[in-house]
Amino acid sequence: MGLDFYFAPHSTATITQLVLAELGVEHRAHSIDLRAGGAKTPEFLKINPNAKVPVIVHDGVAIFESAAITMYLGEQFGVAKGLYPAAGPKRGEAMKWIVWTNVTLGEAVYRWAYNTQGWTPKEQCNAAAGEAALAQIQELLAIADGALADRPYLCGEYTLADTHMHSFMDWLRAMKIDFSAHKRLEAWSARCSDRPAWKQVEG
Amino acid sequence: MGLDFYFAPHSTATITQLVLAELGVEHRAHSIDLRAGGAKTPEFLKINPNAKVPVIVHDGVAIFESAAITMYLGEQFGVAKGLYPAAGPKRGEAMKWIVWTNVTLGEAVYRWAYNTQGWTPKEQCNAAAGEAALAQIQELLAIADGALADRPYLCGEYTLADTHMHSFMDWLRAMKIDFSAHKRLEAWSARCSDRPAWKQVEG
Repeated sequence: MGLDFYFAPHSTATITQLVLAELGVEHRAHSIDLRAGGAKTPEFLKINPNAKVPVIVHDGVAIFESAAITMYLGEQFGVAKGLYPAAGPKRGEAMKWIVWTNVTLGEAVYRWAYNTQGWTPKEQCNAAAGEAALAQIQELLAIADGALADRPYLCGEYTLADTHMHSFMDWLRAMKIDFSAHKRLEAWSARCSDRPAWKQVEG
Repeated sequence: MGLDFYFAPHSTATITQLVLAELGVEHRAHSIDLRAGGAKTPEFLKINPNAKVPVIVHDGVAIFESAAITMYLGEQFGVAKGLYPAAGPKRGEAMKWIVWTNVTLGEAVYRWAYNTQGWTPKEQCNAAAGEAALAQIQELLAIADGALADRPYLCGEYTLADTHMHSFMDWLRAMKIDFSAHKRLEAWSARCSDRPAWKQVEG
């Protein structure tokens, strides 16, 4: 039945687009028009009741959550291509950074964005909470920066953990989060942006 | 080198405690006194720079983030014990619910808790944002409830995805989130609480 990929341009589905480009896996891509309610049709809600992209359907099974998708595609297709560690502690290292990106960093980013980026009505915003979240984002970026102290990529060699975190952090850059205190992240980002898959999707 | 597990009683590390109890994996458990700064010692920060539990160290590699740990222990030890699907789409289904718990449900829960549960100084709280987050939590619980429409557990048979989500939802119950509209979740929770591992850890 193969692999179907549901995405929207300029959305968090870009992470999955990059992962698929790295892997070079054949798939059918379906662009969803979020503004026109394309994620709220009965057909789409059957695939993802959260009404969100990205979602993949592999051999009839729908998988949502970009972090789950990256790890899933990694173990299905990435090991053979040298882009994801084989089962074992090294893979655990990739998994911890992929999950950390969306859970710990993601929570702080959403807290900042909800309070400052017009995601909700003004009466639900709190400037002080936004500032506290922004300070925390900087602490978290310092943690990621520290993970690169003795290695060029998160797991040593380039893996889909880099694809994943780098794409997420690119979104932070687009929202004008300041990376200037994190020199290793800056250098790593330049290395990640130099990959053919990145140029193919983002170029 | 074996498996080390760093936890604190009554923390989010309970998820990992339950996963380890289900798996019956031999390990060394280390209780961290969070109030006494036990997660902020130089030794601990080397294991988890986020200064949080849970974290496991398996064969010398530190893995943090409870969702990553559940999936990691699942693939390492759970397949043989019938508690985690073998690699393939069925495993992807387990992964999507484990990640969804911490990313999508988790973000809404943290947003609610930050605004209403005294997690931050009062001047950083916004009651309207708290209400909006609580409404969203109810929508998300309805999604999980819907996932149980045609099956007793998230992946059909009981897996660590149930251990994980159920433990997280138990924390929501402890924070007085109302589950009464979600009858399937209520019945599923009763089934999950009936497991020997649950009784061993929570009993």
